[in-house]
Amino acid sequence: MSATTREIRLAARPHGEPTAADFELAETALPEPGPGEVLIRNSYLSVDPYMRGRMRDVKSYIPPFEIGKVMEGGAVGEVVASNDGPFAVGDWVQHMGGWREHALNDGTLAYRVDPALAPVSTALGVLGMPGLTAYAGVTEIAPVKEGETVYVSAAAGAVGSAAGQIARLRGCRVVGSAGSAEKVDWLTGELGFDAAFDYHGADLPATLRELCPDGIDVYFDNVGGDQLDAALARMNVHGRIALCGRIASYNDETLEPGPRNFAAALPRRLTMRGFIVFDHGHLMKPFLAEVGAWVRSGELRYRETILDGIDRMPDAFVGLLSGENVGKMLVRVGPDPS
Amino acid sequence: MSATTREIRLAARPHGEPTAADFELAETALPEPGPGEVLIRNSYLSVDPYMRGRMRDVKSYIPPFEIGKVMEGGAVGEVVASNDGPFAVGDWVQHMGGWREHALNDGTLAYRVDPALAPVSTALGVLGMPGLTAYAGVTEIAPVKEGETVYVSAAAGAVGSAAGQIARLRGCRVVGSAGSAEKVDWLTGELGFDAAFDYHGADLPATLRELCPDGIDVYFDNVGGDQLDAALARMNVHGRIALCGRIASYNDETLEPGPRNFAAALPRRLTMRGFIVFDHGHLMKPFLAEVGAWVRSGELRYRETILDGIDRMPDAFVGLLSGENVGKMLVRVGPDPS
Repeated sequence: MSATTREIRLAARPHGEPTAADFELAETALPEPGPGEVLIRNSYLSVDPYMRGRMRDVKSYIPPFEIGKVMEGGAVGEVVASNDGPFAVGDWVQHMGGWREHALNDGTLAYRVDPALAPVSTALGVLGMPGLTAYAGVTEIAPVKEGETVYVSAAAGAVGSAAGQIARLRGCRVVGSAGSAEKVDWLTGELGFDAAFDYHGADLPATLRELCPDGIDVYFDNVGGDQLDAALARMNVHGRIALCGRIASYNDETLEPGPRNFAAALPRRLTMRGFIVFDHGHLMKPFLAEVGAWVRSGELRYRETILDGIDRMPDAFVGLLSGENVGKMLVRVGPDPS
Repeated sequence: MSATTREIRLAARPHGEPTAADFELAETALPEPGPGEVLIRNSYLSVDPYMRGRMRDVKSYIPPFEIGKVMEGGAVGEVVASNDGPFAVGDWVQHMGGWREHALNDGTLAYRVDPALAPVSTALGVLGMPGLTAYAGVTEIAPVKEGETVYVSAAAGAVGSAAGQIARLRGCRVVGSAGSAEKVDWLTGELGFDAAFDYHGADLPATLRELCPDGIDVYFDNVGGDQLDAALARMNVHGRIALCGRIASYNDETLEPGPRNFAAALPRRLTMRGFIVFDHGHLMKPFLAEVGAWVRSGELRYRETILDGIDRMPDAFVGLLSGENVGKMLVRVGPDPS
């Protein structure tokens, strides 16, 4: 074990699109676990769209990142030392001390991952927070019913690809939007979406009319902006919208007006619900049982876009916000289980 | 019984605010009930904000009014002739054949009203569709819980005044907005609202901060526009918004953008639900039991603004859209029960 480790700190609050200058790669002494703590050597670090919100100095559901402090986030790694801590040396653990090669943990927001069940990286993606987000969205927030049409934006992302497939496996007709021809092919090919399209330059209302001839019953919104507007115009009576993300606006400096078609909510009796996965921890068990089985059987597929080395974290994050990933965006900073 | 009767027809589709020229008062032969029909002599005709939407030539949850045809809407009257119809001569009936002095009915969208229980006019207001709308909103669409803060816009209207009082009687702290000092006094006086304000010229965000120091748990939205925006900014986590009306925009010729604070729905996990009272007929029985008892005991109060004579229907409707009413706006075209 080396005597130093590396971490990424927030150097400046970005204006608009984050750049490398907003981050600082720092070398620091390898910490020793205090009483009740373990030391984790991270193997995979997660970048997620919600982190852009935490880079702003505004009150929200989680506190903002602080300038000069480590960016935190999901990570998975192996316990390499324990001072009477909550996990044993050799355990693989999912925790929130990411954006660094090593992290201390006292059990807070951490749980053991079984490397025998699935690759440990999936604990940050299809079998982790993004997968649970998708599951909560289509089961509790905007429950889908067999035979319904479900539209998913950013459908090739970690959350969207899971949401669309869960809806498909529940008997829905699933339509997705994504940001490249490659992603669209992945959606309609391997993932079994009934239809998909590249939103770049698309006439969104016309495309949704064509691909959702019977209207949209459930819209799983990861994007906001024009896609939400176009979906609203196509929603069926008693339709449901899961407001999961607004990646189209995350780099905006000013508050964008809400959807022009907002008023459709009244005559069509729409339900629009914003949600945060933290509220849905009670679903973790049924989610892991159901989706875990589908992943193992191959009925539900996933991809990961992996960059190597902690110095790539800013690239991974900026790339995520501009849609360079297919599936879950990860940075590998340590070995897989042997 | 005279050989003619009068009715109001749609003369033109209004642009912006409706004017008298958009309506035509016509005299026509008194109809005879056909087999299975009754003839009703109307006593009270209802004007409602939703009627502005029906004056547009657009598909919605109910078909648009047609040029040259009678404006239809809620009415209450006495059965004066029956040709083997669904009601007996002398019955008082609530039905949808309004904007005329006499109407035929075969039982469609009609029900008997008991004049002994409450003034028959209440079948168009506090104990009718507006009251049921309020009840559905605070019980099913945006359920209120004891101790919560409930904000109601257009709180001195037929729906708002009922919604606020139902929430108060369910143990909520209730705040309302209205369009005049007289209405505000009525809200905080007779109706028992905890606070109320005149929205004209008000700094809405500052006013809501002051009057809702613990935030808003439920917003009953009759207005849309700026009030929805200000409420969104003040909503608590897991707040609920019943999207009942958008009277601020009903005369608009162009589609207004949605609320600027729409994005608050995600971090605060808000639920926004549009609704139409037609979906909530199953609540009629509990509504009449609960609210009927409160009206009889005086725990829930109501007012009516009544104009006299069918020729006043256009005035009543235009006045309703500009907030000239306190409580339910009605036109009297016949006698009360003797």
